[in-house]
Amino acid sequence: MSILVVGSVAFDRITTPFGTADRCLGGSATYFAVAASFFAPVNLVAVVGDDFTAEDAAIFKGRNINLDGLQKVKGAKTFFWAGEYGYDLNVAKTRETQLNVFADFKPQLNDVQRDSEVIFLANIDPDLQMDVLRQCRKPRIVALDTMNYWISAKKEALTHAFQNVDLIVINEAEVRQFTQEANLVKGCRQILALGARTLVIKRGEYGVLMITREAVFAVPAYPLENVFDPTGAGDTFAGGFLGYLASCRENDDRELRRAIIFGSVLASFTVEKFSLDRLREITLTDVQERYRAFRTLTHFEDFEV
Amino acid sequence: MSILVVGSVAFDRITTPFGTADRCLGGSATYFAVAASFFAPVNLVAVVGDDFTAEDAAIFKGRNINLDGLQKVKGAKTFFWAGEYGYDLNVAKTRETQLNVFADFKPQLNDVQRDSEVIFLANIDPDLQMDVLRQCRKPRIVALDTMNYWISAKKEALTHAFQNVDLIVINEAEVRQFTQEANLVKGCRQILALGARTLVIKRGEYGVLMITREAVFAVPAYPLENVFDPTGAGDTFAGGFLGYLASCRENDDRELRRAIIFGSVLASFTVEKFSLDRLREITLTDVQERYRAFRTLTHFEDFEV
Repeated sequence: MSILVVGSVAFDRITTPFGTADRCLGGSATYFAVAASFFAPVNLVAVVGDDFTAEDAAIFKGRNINLDGLQKVKGAKTFFWAGEYGYDLNVAKTRETQLNVFADFKPQLNDVQRDSEVIFLANIDPDLQMDVLRQCRKPRIVALDTMNYWISAKKEALTHAFQNVDLIVINEAEVRQFTQEANLVKGCRQILALGARTLVIKRGEYGVLMITREAVFAVPAYPLENVFDPTGAGDTFAGGFLGYLASCRENDDRELRRAIIFGSVLASFTVEKFSLDRLREITLTDVQERYRAFRTLTHFEDFEV
Repeated sequence: MSILVVGSVAFDRITTPFGTADRCLGGSATYFAVAASFFAPVNLVAVVGDDFTAEDAAIFKGRNINLDGLQKVKGAKTFFWAGEYGYDLNVAKTRETQLNVFADFKPQLNDVQRDSEVIFLANIDPDLQMDVLRQCRKPRIVALDTMNYWISAKKEALTHAFQNVDLIVINEAEVRQFTQEANLVKGCRQILALGARTLVIKRGEYGVLMITREAVFAVPAYPLENVFDPTGAGDTFAGGFLGYLASCRENDDRELRRAIIFGSVLASFTVEKFSLDRLREITLTDVQERYRAFRTLTHFEDFEV
């Protein structure tokens, strides 16, 4: 199945205790598309300014990514985000946001994009997410991400969006903020009750929890000796997760679990270098090797009676 | 193999958003002994005041726990700890500590205790931990726990203790505090370089990470809809973990992993009610059922090529 991602392509300035990277490539749709393209064809819909060069776009080349939806606005600048991490690398402090071209982003899909079967609505205004979804003609799996800002600023619209997707990718703090429920599992059940089949909870360095009505699946993150820059880990995860699902015939519990692992694998590469520098250099063989390493990491046998 | 635990038996006053429990049974050795006794015989060494009644001691009855080492000091009071948790239940704020009889605790082991083969030195002064260890005649597995206080107040003594045990059970923040290393895996390697074979990192609601020189094993915590009181979860984990190991013929990677799961299982019960109220009512069958639930929670298959 082909994938549609609607989100941001951005320039970031990232400051970590290990150094600063200025004007490096970022954006939710960028990380997602590169990760997903390991498994299935991706239609990318985003907007950039004319400061976005062919060199910047090179990250997408040679991959299964259709760039017809990457709109370039003349005389305008690409979305810019500056973030800073402390030693624990868990939470980014936003230092600067310049929406630029992203302020007026209102995607109109072409026929190819409208026929995508797996839809990822990255973290944008929930009204815009639903506007995109209405344009889709045969969605099979619809997933969305969101953030604390939309939970506080547009809760009603976000609730409506939650009611109209199959899969929600969200982090722990957002579950608690949205539901005002301290217990994570209870909070997840409340969100699932709105209509989605599957909730995927991102827990950063602690991994991922997936809750459906029938099952709960949990996996730790891959313990890395070198975590350099966590930017984009969540969107990379979503890309690996949905990319793998798009490549499956079934989307049953077994494949959902594998998809969670592939998402975790891709995200574990992203954080090893700044920006998409690590994603840029890995191959499908690297991905498969680390999938097996995840098995070794988490495997234990039944007890003997 | 028989187990020796040296630590505290205490009265706690626990305040959580769900209520307060006053003068309830607590203490590291209490939680540890009850959990470990599901798998192997335990020799408990601790001290209480004469306010510790037969009713309080009932928790140990009908279990494989030898109380010869539970010293009762006349005219003195049992160790008391008051702690409070917020909604996230992750960190206890200590509201009051009365050392009472525990201030002069200097255990002298009898012959049976000295012949224990699995030794758990619960969180006490590291000099005292080594003093106990010197009294042991045939230790096969020696494990210790510690806390932030000893890392700052007695780092040299604690380092010496780390050099003389097989297994260290410690939490994430303590690894970072001891090593001043932000990356957890690197910090663990530094501690392992001191001499222990195995490091077990407790991560609260995020589960457990085990690092040896050869392998890394990670398991999430069991996601619970009712977490009531996290007090004692770490010591319960250590009890299940070492209790299971004491029951094994081998202590290879396979059994260490199973032991981590059994520890996690026991801890997941402890937090469901105040004090040891949940541990008190479960059976080995409950423990085995939840072990299988852990398999279901974490299992995923290899991918198909």
